[in-house]
Amino acid sequence: MTATVNPNTSDALARLAAVLESRLPANGGDPEKSYVARLLHKGPDAFLKKIGEEATEVVMAAKDADHGGDRSKIVNEVADLWFHTMVALAHYGFSPADVVAELERREGTSGIEEKALRKVQAREASND
Amino acid sequence: MTATVNPNTSDALARLAAVLESRLPANGGDPEKSYVARLLHKGPDAFLKKIGEEATEVVMAAKDADHGGDRSKIVNEVADLWFHTMVALAHYGFSPADVVAELERREGTSGIEEKALRKVQAREASND
Amino acid sequence: MTATVNPNTSDALARLAAVLESRLPANGGDPEKSYVARLLHKGPDAFLKKIGEEATEVVMAAKDADHGGDRSKIVNEVADLWFHTMVALAHYGFSPADVVAELERREGTSGIEEKALRKVQAREASND
Amino acid sequence: MTATVNPNTSDALARLAAVLESRLPANGGDPEKSYVARLLHKGPDAFLKKIGEEATEVVMAAKDADHGGDRSKIVNEVADLWFHTMVALAHYGFSPADVVAELERREGTSGIEEKALRKVQAREASND
Repeated sequence: MTATVNPNTSDALARLAAVLESRLPANGGDPEKSYVARLLHKGPDAFLKKIGEEATEVVMAAKDADHGGDRSKIVNEVADLWFHTMVALAHYGFSPADVVAELERREGTSGIEEKALRKVQAREASND
Repeated sequence: MTATVNPNTSDALARLAAVLESRLPANGGDPEKSYVARLLHKGPDAFLKKIGEEATEVVMAAKDADHGGDRSKIVNEVADLWFHTMVALAHYGFSPADVVAELERREGTSGIEEKALRKVQAREASND
Repeated sequence: MTATVNPNTSDALARLAAVLESRLPANGGDPEKSYVARLLHKGPDAFLKKIGEEATEVVMAAKDADHGGDRSKIVNEVADLWFHTMVALAHYGFSPADVVAELERREGTSGIEEKALRKVQAREASND
Repeated sequence: MTATVNPNTSDALARLAAVLESRLPANGGDPEKSYVARLLHKGPDAFLKKIGEEATEVVMAAKDADHGGDRSKIVNEVADLWFHTMVALAHYGFSPADVVAELERREGTSGIEEKALRKVQAREASND
């Protein structure tokens, strides 16, 4: 019996990353046929600007949700934001796996949250 | 024999999401002990502001890399950005798996890139 | 003899604000004839998104200048950013004069910089 | 009789710009005594990051206002945003007068709004 493979986040991100990499100019990505190829072809400013824009859209969707709006828009906007960061990662030779590895590294390093916390506490103390 | 869970990306994001959820006020997250619990305790504006800030830091790291700087800073900054979007997702009752599912859904929908492309082409045509 | 009026920042901002106000739907701004009228007609998300995008462009222009690029692009991007914040101000019933008055109020309040400084120093001390 | 300078917006921005310039390291700004001197002393990333953060706060304040919140917060946040862009301008050798001159130049150039509008219309047409 074939094991039913659970929808795997890792596999999905890796598959998407492979598509994005295939859109790189060096890999023959055609700016006339693909939105991502066009972004990559235009160069960093094109997709970096999108990162700023999509981050703002995440914030707007979240504020709408705070005030009773449709929460599912948040997922859409975070997807847009992650997507465009993945375009940037592809351009600079990285993959989502690198990001996840970095997140794991931090998770494994005890004391990180505590250090971040002490910084915040010191800052707040000085606000009084 | 118990299957050894592969330490893959999926598990990493899911594990991190579980940690973040445990920091929610409703789950007993202690703002005196955890940076994330404090962010969540302060409410949306605290972590949404971080999303804007971290997106800017991704852009700065990328621009530095464009000009010969250390590319690995990009991975660190994207990790910061994804981390804070995951804090937001936890607050609003979502997980990274929801985001990845949305990305997969789009990947599976043929014609999405083409539509996005036509928009960009029309915009550029009107720039001439 | 008529005094030669120096190009006055205040007057220029006030004039621009008056133009933006005339583009409000309530003042008959026509979305088919004016970019600003169209932004205002579409509602807040349209121009708020631009604020996030233009802030990112300021950052990119500044980073390019740091690495030897044309510094004058910074002025262009700050102009874009201020312009879109002025569109937002018009929508919410404010003018640049309100912003400038707030900046003046702070300038007049002694101790503000010192307080901001103490916060930063506390934060940095906790980084050690 | 010496003309009494009207305390107008122009003067206010020019005065603030002069204060910011006096905080530049080259002008003896002391990072131990002034928040702005410290920002300028740390270098571009410090104040550019603030521009991204403050733009996000403008957006959040506007969204709150959209949902019935206190509109005056918008003015405060725009003041923060303009303030930090003025710190950047000082660092790169520019003043708010340069930004206002650029805004005036555009205002004087007929057809600019129309061109921007045509771009938006083309984009929207391709969305149908």
